[in-house]
Amino acid sequence: MKAALGLDFGTLSVRALVVGLDGRELGSATRDYAHGAICDHLPGSDLALPPDFALQHPLDWLESAVEAARDAIRQAEGHEVVGIGVDFTSCTMLPLDRDGAPLCLNREFTLVPHAWAKLWKHHGAIPQAARMTALARERGESFLARYGGTIGEEWLFPKILEVIENAPEVAEAASHWMEAGDWVVWQLIGGSAVPLVRSTCQAGYKGLWSAQDGGPSDDFLAALHPALPAAARKIPDLTIAPGNAAGVLSARMAERLGIRSGIPVSAAIIDAHAGVPGAGASMPGTLVMVLGTSSCHMLNSEVDTTIPGVAGVVRDGILPGFYGYETGQAAVGDAFDWLRCMTGETGFSRLSKEAAALPAGAEGVRCLDWFNGCRTPYMDGSLRGAFTGLSLRHGPAHLHRSLMEATAFGVRWIVDLFRGAGVPVERFCATGGLPHHDPFLMQIYADVLGESITIPPSRHGPALGAAILGALAAGEFRDAASAIESMTALGNATARVVVPGKDAASYEPIYDEYRRWGETFQPS
Amino acid sequence: MKAALGLDFGTLSVRALVVGLDGRELGSATRDYAHGAICDHLPGSDLALPPDFALQHPLDWLESAVEAARDAIRQAEGHEVVGIGVDFTSCTMLPLDRDGAPLCLNREFTLVPHAWAKLWKHHGAIPQAARMTALARERGESFLARYGGTIGEEWLFPKILEVIENAPEVAEAASHWMEAGDWVVWQLIGGSAVPLVRSTCQAGYKGLWSAQDGGPSDDFLAALHPALPAAARKIPDLTIAPGNAAGVLSARMAERLGIRSGIPVSAAIIDAHAGVPGAGASMPGTLVMVLGTSSCHMLNSEVDTTIPGVAGVVRDGILPGFYGYETGQAAVGDAFDWLRCMTGETGFSRLSKEAAALPAGAEGVRCLDWFNGCRTPYMDGSLRGAFTGLSLRHGPAHLHRSLMEATAFGVRWIVDLFRGAGVPVERFCATGGLPHHDPFLMQIYADVLGESITIPPSRHGPALGAAILGALAAGEFRDAASAIESMTALGNATARVVVPGKDAASYEPIYDEYRRWGETFQPS
Repeated sequence: MKAALGLDFGTLSVRALVVGLDGRELGSATRDYAHGAICDHLPGSDLALPPDFALQHPLDWLESAVEAARDAIRQAEGHEVVGIGVDFTSCTMLPLDRDGAPLCLNREFTLVPHAWAKLWKHHGAIPQAARMTALARERGESFLARYGGTIGEEWLFPKILEVIENAPEVAEAASHWMEAGDWVVWQLIGGSAVPLVRSTCQAGYKGLWSAQDGGPSDDFLAALHPALPAAARKIPDLTIAPGNAAGVLSARMAERLGIRSGIPVSAAIIDAHAGVPGAGASMPGTLVMVLGTSSCHMLNSEVDTTIPGVAGVVRDGILPGFYGYETGQAAVGDAFDWLRCMTGETGFSRLSKEAAALPAGAEGVRCLDWFNGCRTPYMDGSLRGAFTGLSLRHGPAHLHRSLMEATAFGVRWIVDLFRGAGVPVERFCATGGLPHHDPFLMQIYADVLGESITIPPSRHGPALGAAILGALAAGEFRDAASAIESMTALGNATARVVVPGKDAASYEPIYDEYRRWGETFQPS
Repeated sequence: MKAALGLDFGTLSVRALVVGLDGRELGSATRDYAHGAICDHLPGSDLALPPDFALQHPLDWLESAVEAARDAIRQAEGHEVVGIGVDFTSCTMLPLDRDGAPLCLNREFTLVPHAWAKLWKHHGAIPQAARMTALARERGESFLARYGGTIGEEWLFPKILEVIENAPEVAEAASHWMEAGDWVVWQLIGGSAVPLVRSTCQAGYKGLWSAQDGGPSDDFLAALHPALPAAARKIPDLTIAPGNAAGVLSARMAERLGIRSGIPVSAAIIDAHAGVPGAGASMPGTLVMVLGTSSCHMLNSEVDTTIPGVAGVVRDGILPGFYGYETGQAAVGDAFDWLRCMTGETGFSRLSKEAAALPAGAEGVRCLDWFNGCRTPYMDGSLRGAFTGLSLRHGPAHLHRSLMEATAFGVRWIVDLFRGAGVPVERFCATGGLPHHDPFLMQIYADVLGESITIPPSRHGPALGAAILGALAAGEFRDAASAIESMTALGNATARVVVPGKDAASYEPIYDEYRRWGETFQPS
């Protein structure tokens, strides 16, 4: 049977998934990145990184991906991989030298933090983002409305400007600035032997780019820093939409993966966005909640509007024919894990069991879940989290439950923003790792939203979405909807549906409290 | 040599201390109470207690005290105990039957929570205290100003009213209502064979009593509940000031302790208040901070005034000749311990070491330390604690440090209240368990206060204070100041002094922030 390979590059690991064109899962494997997220020290150095830094080692991506893919392909023996799709965290970006090699691998720059790949959650560019937002507002830049009025500190231009201002020698030595997903796709299709490519998805959501207007003007960039227009010209200008082939698998990479060369490789897509096709959501009005380290909630709609605090709306950004809205929560799985470490627990079993035994509202403990800043609604990475209502009677399970509830209130706020702006939200679908690991969390979400939530059985939504885009790029389906329906129908016939339960009414006043609390941080 | 025995009844254990009249420590021992603080289930019952309950077993006090005292007296062999003093947590109170036996030991009442001794930190009487405060304000009761305008939910009358309203059969069966400290003294001097006694200290600070006015009027009490005036008449009316003999050691208790009978026993004093003579503070203007499970800060002054939120001012309440002010923080050591458990640590060594390595301000983490309600300034047990400014970069040590800092800010607020009302605070002295266990905590306090803090070398301040009062009751000194000076001079010659360090200036803006935050909870 014909099959497609999806490569899903997450924050700490990569998953390779081989799926038949009828949706059958034929092989699956993951590999951790050898260096994970580099937050404390550069490899081979004792120098402490600044607290907001989160870097990655580019070779980790390729090496882990090759290993995972070989493993998955071996499991799928007897089936033929005809297309490859790649999704990646974003904006994870890196500077390249003249030959397209990561600058941090050049001996001259191995000890310069700014030469390394910056992970999406690197927060060193908060001041740059703030200045870009202020200037864009002042100048009335038209692109700003597409991003809810705020340029995120995790995005491409703030991160480039951060390098220009803090390590000008790196900016000068860089010949190219690339999204990590684009760089990996480029490596698959031949690297320096073929033209540099850029996905419209990453460009649209994280690069201030649109098909209509292109990128920000030289005027705007020069007003921020005289070196910024030149840096912008180092971003690849060949844009390709996900689901279209960026090129074909090179002989060298084909050999490493153990499959034939010449297979079409789709342009990259952001990992969360890949979750939309992966969840089988081919219709407008389905909120696809990708719940992982952080959460990303995506919605396709026929309505074109701009909503303050909604991180991005990109035409054809997720699926062709719709306006794709992206919203997010900066710390979800990350926050659960952080709190677990804080309580000295080695696993979640005791915390979860005890939290589930508590009443809705965690006996008065309240949490604001902005432990990695606030994405939607305020797009402000400098905001911080909190626990209040604490007494000596409360234990770790109270904190855990209040944190789960807070992340649910965060989703509810996003849904209310959409509906308040006239963008229909009609169906709810949860994917990513958390819905499978934590059924009780999903019950809280259903209760807080007062809506049923469908949980597709595949635990690898983004990887499946990437594979679907790979099949589409290979020309195996006439359009995206056919590809999605064909490759998710089998799985979704057994989807679990979580319906709101008895706690739904109890959450109403607690959500109101959360909203009022959160709104005290509204930017003026 | 002549010596005095001090019995210091804390929340979970009792200390017996034998001290020579020259201040030499001759023997010391502690014993835990077998049942500790009873918060979950009554002994012999599976029935869960309400979350705000904190009870004790009266026999624990006597049995632990006898064991500890025998041990300390044995160590002091060759010396003669000539006086005994007792300090006790307050308001810890209990109902007695006609014969003076605790009602909870009567088979009919062993399973009735309200028949048990209520520990100072029992918080079941919050609504009763609120109603008493409201009514006293409405009627313009003159006693109210002595208590900063608020009747505490931990005090005697709210606790009695709680019993009347929730277990009228207990209130009816009770022949006497007694402070635990008074009850223990009464047991030492002969129990039912001698008249019931009441300390002016407990009566003044926790019983709405003053030498000038006596207790609250029948009118006021009847307006709260028709049964309350009759209950008030069951409180002993023979009041004796600490340092005066309530009676002499009975033959039976003398035999149990292994000393001679007939030794004078001082009237009881509140444990924290015993820390004032114990710290050698015989002068007005010395703030004696007794830092333990909770903290109590006491000040003798020549100035008579009333300060909103200061828990009590009692003439001769701590030492004869001065106005004794009492203020407090409801959770200090308790909160450290709670947080330690929350972080899964078995001891404080790692937390303390890591917290000390952090900069002042705990890298942005802020704490409001009202985890057991707020005593000074708001006298409101329903208030709750909080941590804010949290990010994924923070760990348990950040919480620990911010909690330490918050408790220091709480003391600073109290000092500012005194000075703002024209009551001089000139010297600072820290006693109780924490100053010895945690030198770094004391550095934070000195930095936050911007003042030097003297730490008397005795780790048993209240027990020493009780012993001083015992010696005074035995007529061994001409006045309190002579007793204090004689019995603390030896030790205090080697007192440690902690001076403000480099962090003092950094704390100013963080304290201002804490004040503004705390003041958002100001009662309207």
